[in-house]
Parts: sequence; C-alpha cells; structure tokens
Amino acid sequence: MIRSAPQTSTINRDRLLQSIAELAAIGCLPQGGVRRIAYTPEDIQGRNLVRQWMQKADMKVRIDAAGNIIGRYEGKFPQLPVLATGSHLDTVPSGGRYDGALGVLAGLEVVRGLQDTNLQFDRPFEVIVFTDEENSTIGSKAMSGNVVGDSDYYRRPDGSSIQTCLQRIGGNWDAIATAKRPVGEIAAFVELHVEQGPVLESMQKEIGIVEGIVGQRRFKIFVEGNANHAGTTPMYMRRDALVTASKVVLAVNAIGNTPGQQVATVGQLQVYPNAANVVPGNVEMSLDIRDLSDCHIDCLLEQLRLHFEDIALATDTKIHIVPQLHLEPALAEPHIQQAIARACEKMGLSYTHLPSRASHDAQEMANITEMGMIFVPSSGGISHAEEEHSSPEECLRGAKVLWETLWQLDRYYGT
Amino acid sequence: MIRSAPQTSTINRDRLLQSIAELAAIGCLPQGGVRRIAYTPEDIQGRNLVRQWMQKADMKVRIDAAGNIIGRYEGKFPQLPVLATGSHLDTVPSGGRYDGALGVLAGLEVVRGLQDTNLQFDRPFEVIVFTDEENSTIGSKAMSGNVVGDSDYYRRPDGSSIQTCLQRIGGNWDAIATAKRPVGEIAAFVELHVEQGPVLESMQKEIGIVEGIVGQRRFKIFVEGNANHAGTTPMYMRRDALVTASKVVLAVNAIGNTPGQQVATVGQLQVYPNAANVVPGNVEMSLDIRDLSDCHIDCLLEQLRLHFEDIALATDTKIHIVPQLHLEPALAEPHIQQAIARACEKMGLSYTHLPSRASHDAQEMANITEMGMIFVPSSGGISHAEEEHSSPEECLRGAKVLWETLWQLDRYYGT
Repeated sequence: MIRSAPQTSTINRDRLLQSIAELAAIGCLPQGGVRRIAYTPEDIQGRNLVRQWMQKADMKVRIDAAGNIIGRYEGKFPQLPVLATGSHLDTVPSGGRYDGALGVLAGLEVVRGLQDTNLQFDRPFEVIVFTDEENSTIGSKAMSGNVVGDSDYYRRPDGSSIQTCLQRIGGNWDAIATAKRPVGEIAAFVELHVEQGPVLESMQKEIGIVEGIVGQRRFKIFVEGNANHAGTTPMYMRRDALVTASKVVLAVNAIGNTPGQQVATVGQLQVYPNAANVVPGNVEMSLDIRDLSDCHIDCLLEQLRLHFEDIALATDTKIHIVPQLHLEPALAEPHIQQAIARACEKMGLSYTHLPSRASHDAQEMANITEMGMIFVPSSGGISHAEEEHSSPEECLRGAKVLWETLWQLDRYYGT
Repeated sequence: MIRSAPQTSTINRDRLLQSIAELAAIGCLPQGGVRRIAYTPEDIQGRNLVRQWMQKADMKVRIDAAGNIIGRYEGKFPQLPVLATGSHLDTVPSGGRYDGALGVLAGLEVVRGLQDTNLQFDRPFEVIVFTDEENSTIGSKAMSGNVVGDSDYYRRPDGSSIQTCLQRIGGNWDAIATAKRPVGEIAAFVELHVEQGPVLESMQKEIGIVEGIVGQRRFKIFVEGNANHAGTTPMYMRRDALVTASKVVLAVNAIGNTPGQQVATVGQLQVYPNAANVVPGNVEMSLDIRDLSDCHIDCLLEQLRLHFEDIALATDTKIHIVPQLHLEPALAEPHIQQAIARACEKMGLSYTHLPSRASHDAQEMANITEMGMIFVPSSGGISHAEEEHSSPEECLRGAKVLWETLWQLDRYYGT
C-alpha cells in the first residue's frame, strides 16, 4: 500500500492535450472556439464522450437527478469521505476550449495516471461534471441543496422547461432533491480552472491559488434632476442628473481603488432625455461591487451611501439605490491553499494567491465541503470568447498541481 | 408734426390680448398650446389673418421672395431708413401661444395705436413676419443675405421641397436673393419675445434687456478605453471609458461655472457595451457651449482641451473631440439697450440685462442693421411646450416697452 505520492506525477502530457483537442472538436467554431450550450446535442455529445473515457479508466459512473455526471474511482478505504474534483463541459454561446473542460479533463487524467501505475488514493476519488454552469449552475446548486423550488426559474431562453432539459441528459427534475450530497460525504473539492482574468499573466505567475470566490452585490441607481433647455437655463439654476451621475461614477471608482481587493464598477448608464441641447433630467445606472469579505462590502457600501448623500445635497438632485443581486462570498479552505502552495513549491512553479472574481461550481460546493481552486493563466485575461487561450504547458502545469494537491490532501485527511 | 412721444403709450390692452387669443385659436391644441408649423394650412391661415389686420391698420403689405410678410406704416419722411420690429408666427409641433406671436402682434398694436391717435414716426415703420423661424430661420436668413444656396438644405422633414413650401406662402425660391435688404435700408430692428428661460422670473424682473444672442459651439467627444470583465479585471488594470467620461462631464460643468455668463452642457452620453458586468470600453458624448463672446468661448475651450489632456493621461484612455456646429454671437446695440432701459425707467418697470441663449430672427438681422431685443418673463422658464405662459400683464408691459423704445429710437436717429 503506497501512502506517499510518487516522486513525479503520473500526468501524461500528450494524452491530456489530446483529450482537450478531441473534446474541443465537439461544437467547434471557425476561430478555434467552442459552442456547447447546456442540454444541446453538442453538450450531450461532449458528456457522452467524457462518460466513456471515465468508464475506460475504471470509474463507476452515475448521473444524479440534476444531470451531474459523477465518476468514482474507488479508494483503498471505500467507506472514507471522498476527495473530489471537477468542473463543467457546457460553454457560453461563443466560448473557449478551456473554460470548464480543463478542470474535468485534468481530473480524468489524474485517474488515468492512477490506473496506468496501478495506484489508488486512500479515499474514493470523484470527478464531477456539473450541469449548466454557464447559465444556471443548477448542477452544483442541486448538489449543495440550493436549487430553487420553482421550475419556471430554470426555463431556458428558448422556452424549453427544465424538466425536458434534465430528461435529455439523464436527470429528473421531480427527484432533484436527491442530488444533494450531505455534509461530510465529500471531504474536499478542488477545482482547476482557467483564470478568466489578467492577473496571473500580468504578474508572470504560473499558478494562482484562489483565496475564495468573491461575493457580489448589484444595484440600480436612479438619479433624478430636472430636464431643461441647455441654452436658456443658467448654470446656477440647473439640477443636472448627469453631473450627479458622474460624481457617483467617480465615487464608485474611488471606493474600488481604496486598499483591498474589491472591484467596483458602473458598467451601464442611460441618460434621459439624452439630447445635446437638453440638460439631463434623469440617469439610470448600475453598480456592481465584489469582494471576498461580505462585511467589507457592507462597509464600502456604507461609505458610498454617505458619499451619495453629500453628492445629492451638493447637486440638488435625488439618488435612489435599489438592490438587484446579493451573492455571498465562498472562501477557500486555508489548508487546501497551503497544499496547493506546497505542490507549486515542490514543482518549482511560481504562484500567487488571488480571489476569483468570476463564479464557479466550487462556489456552491463550498456549502457542503472544504473547497479549493487552482487557476492557470488566461492569455490577455480573455474568456467567454473564441480567443480564450491557455498554452499546453500552462494546462499541463495546472493538471500536475491538481494531482500533487490531491495526493497531499489524501494524506492530510488520514484514514 | 409731433416729434416727442406722447406722455403715455397708445397700446390698447384689450385689443392686444384679443388679437393674441384670436391668433392662438388657429392651430390650437387641447392643453392651450398651438401647433402652427411653417408652410402648413394653420401657418397660412395665421399669416392671412395678420396680413388682413395689417391692411386694416393702414399698412402697405408685401411678401418678399422668402415669404416674409413686411407691413409698412409710412413715416413723415418716407425716404429715411426704416425702423423695424417683428418676429414669427410659426411654432414648434407642440408650442405655446406667445413664442413669436407676441412680437408680431405687439408690433401690429404699435401701428394700431399710431393710427388711433393719428400719429406717425418720423421714419417709415415696418412690422415683419419672418418665415419658418422654428426650423430653418430661412426668412431672416434671406433678409440678411445668409441663405444657403443649395435648396436641398431646406427640404422639409416630410420631404417637400423649399420651392413648393415658399410658393404656398407667396414666396419664390428662384428669386430668394431679392429678399436681401441692403445695409442702411433699416436703421434698427427691435424684437419683443418671451424669454424662454427662467432668469427674469427667478430674479423677479418685469423686463429683460437682451445684451446679445449667444454664440454656440457643439462637439462630439469620443472616449476610448478598454472593455473588460467587471469581475475579473482588477481596478489597477482598467481603462474605464466611463470614468474618463465622468471626469469630462465634471470638467465641462466646472468650466460652465467659472465667472462669466457662459453655459456648458453634456446632454447626450452613450456607453458601450453598456452592461452591468462589463467595464465600459467606449463612450460617445456631446458638448454644447454658449456665450456672448466668441473669444471667451475659444478661451474656455482651450482650458477644456488642457483638462482633457490631463484626464486622458491620468486614466490611460483617449479623448477625441470632433466639431459639429459653430454659430457666432450677435450683439445687441448698446444705444438700443439704453433706450429699452430708459423706457423701463420711465414706466417704473424693473429690468435686468441678460444674454439670449436661444436663437431668434434678430440674430440674423444683426448682420444688416442695429439690433435690440426685449424679453418678458416665461412662467417656470418653460417654452416649446403647451405649458408656455406669460401673463396678460407681462405681455402688455412688453408691448408698452416696445412702443416707448421705438419712439426713442425714432428721435435718436433724427431726420
């Protein structure tokens, strides 16, 4: 019985890259991207291929009520809580070949390597393909028991019901509650993913150790001034909603730039009546603010509210804030972050800790298990586009770090 | 031969208000406003009514090639350069009953009063109805020799040609050059108009003495940043076009609020791609700046350009400015402003000097004669709307000040 990891990982470079290429051929787009939207024939074809690969790698494969594919590679002690990895196979309408797929195929490659060398973890190992990450994250939500009860919530943009969609991939809406995994059943979940942002590339780091997935709040801000003739209304009589809105944009940007890892953005802004010769009467704008700490977000929002009061007073306009969305942060387990760091050090890879500011299935999994995430660089920070790219070496490094991290965690949790 | 003005004006309150009401009935709208768009049957009906009134008041009436109605009340010395007043009868699609009409009907009432009391000015007196002030100001442009040669320029929104339009009202496009009045033929032109702004009301002044009609420059400003994921792009890596645009809006507003009478406005602003979760990549916005002094505008624009350079540098974005419109200011003659002031003082009326920040036929007339304008208050500063309102007493005061001013100017220019 081998208890410590072998000196080098069992990841097979060519097999991993070959699998990525084969999967990318399903739903491939002219510029090298992929269109494999959840529940479509391309998605189903991709799922079937991965299922076959799992079976060939001696995994027991089941599909839960949410359509998640769960491949289990037996451990030496089958009764132990499982170690899990995984990600998703679905893409945005015009996506890349690495977002989601890399995490699934690296997990599969870990198993293939174990099989090659006749090795086992102490505990059972699962590779999970989550259903529809890009649109509803229904797969990871169901597994963590956070699925919305009203099936209409999950109706697809094309009008098809979630009942029909889940049926197509072997799921069953009426039994969706059975997809929930009880706390304790999974010891840890580690997801490998492309960064989808520019931080690693700009810092010239090979691996990102995710500190957590940021919480997000979204608001609509309404500014109410007074529309007036831009010629005949003297400056001192104006209640210009766009002047107010501009101060709001700069206050939001300033809050984003205070010490901390938060981002704060006004991405959407609409002026009414929006004519060159009319002083703007109303502005409608978005506010998006994200951070790893929900209470830090609270504190930033409180500062913003005070700013907004001052701005409204100074400009004789009104500012209304209406909440739209509140997602809580999901923190990565410190000891999993340490395991990833040790893995990098062992392999001589440069790394940095960073928050994930995009959401992932790991965010939901954090509700039922200890969670960690490994990032590899995205060229130019681009994702959700055909130009999304991570080099073969970057993908390979990520898979090797995943392998090493899993070995360490297997020992960490003991028997 | 009476050389000095009578002790009190000959303006007949009831007749003036009755005429305003009769004219307002042509094209009247449900809320009390008027729709009398140039060249339409309503416009023609209004023109015919005023023409009949002029003829009844012993005026010689002619229509020039631009369709301007010119009513002449003979002076004691017919060879002297004429004294002129006037305005327009056409309205915006949903306008008020005073914008334009008041100036024409007050001029008519001056003549009626002269006729009542058997008086004459030394010089010939003209009341002019200018063609299509609201859309093209073709009437006053033709009279001052500034008409555009290409007839397509004047094609109506409904597609009808200017040839057809002018024909309908007794004009003739092919002879448009004959509408030009040589410099020296008109000694002075004084226009009475509603303010179309809130200054007089807010200052509680009964009469406004126009210092001139402001010049106007209009620009398109293009801001070029970098569109990016609002979650995964850290603050320090952003090139947020809306942050830049907000600084531009505030710089424009600050320039508007520096000492002087200028107004500066960003009325239009469009964000691209304009999504809550995307850092804005591009912004397109308008800049409108108006002042009585063209060289003051130049100086303000130069300051803005320097500001914009600093902003672009600080935000790592690009700012492009593209000129759209350049209208030069038209100054009111100081001695006409003095005559109006003396008229107010004689009648015990409160007054203030102010620029006109909307354009008027007087703006064009300033090219061929000495020009002055008298404003009466607009309730709430509202115009180009059915709610436009000036009280009967305000209209009456305006007509009396016009009368007194004309008497003074008649003496000023001598025989």
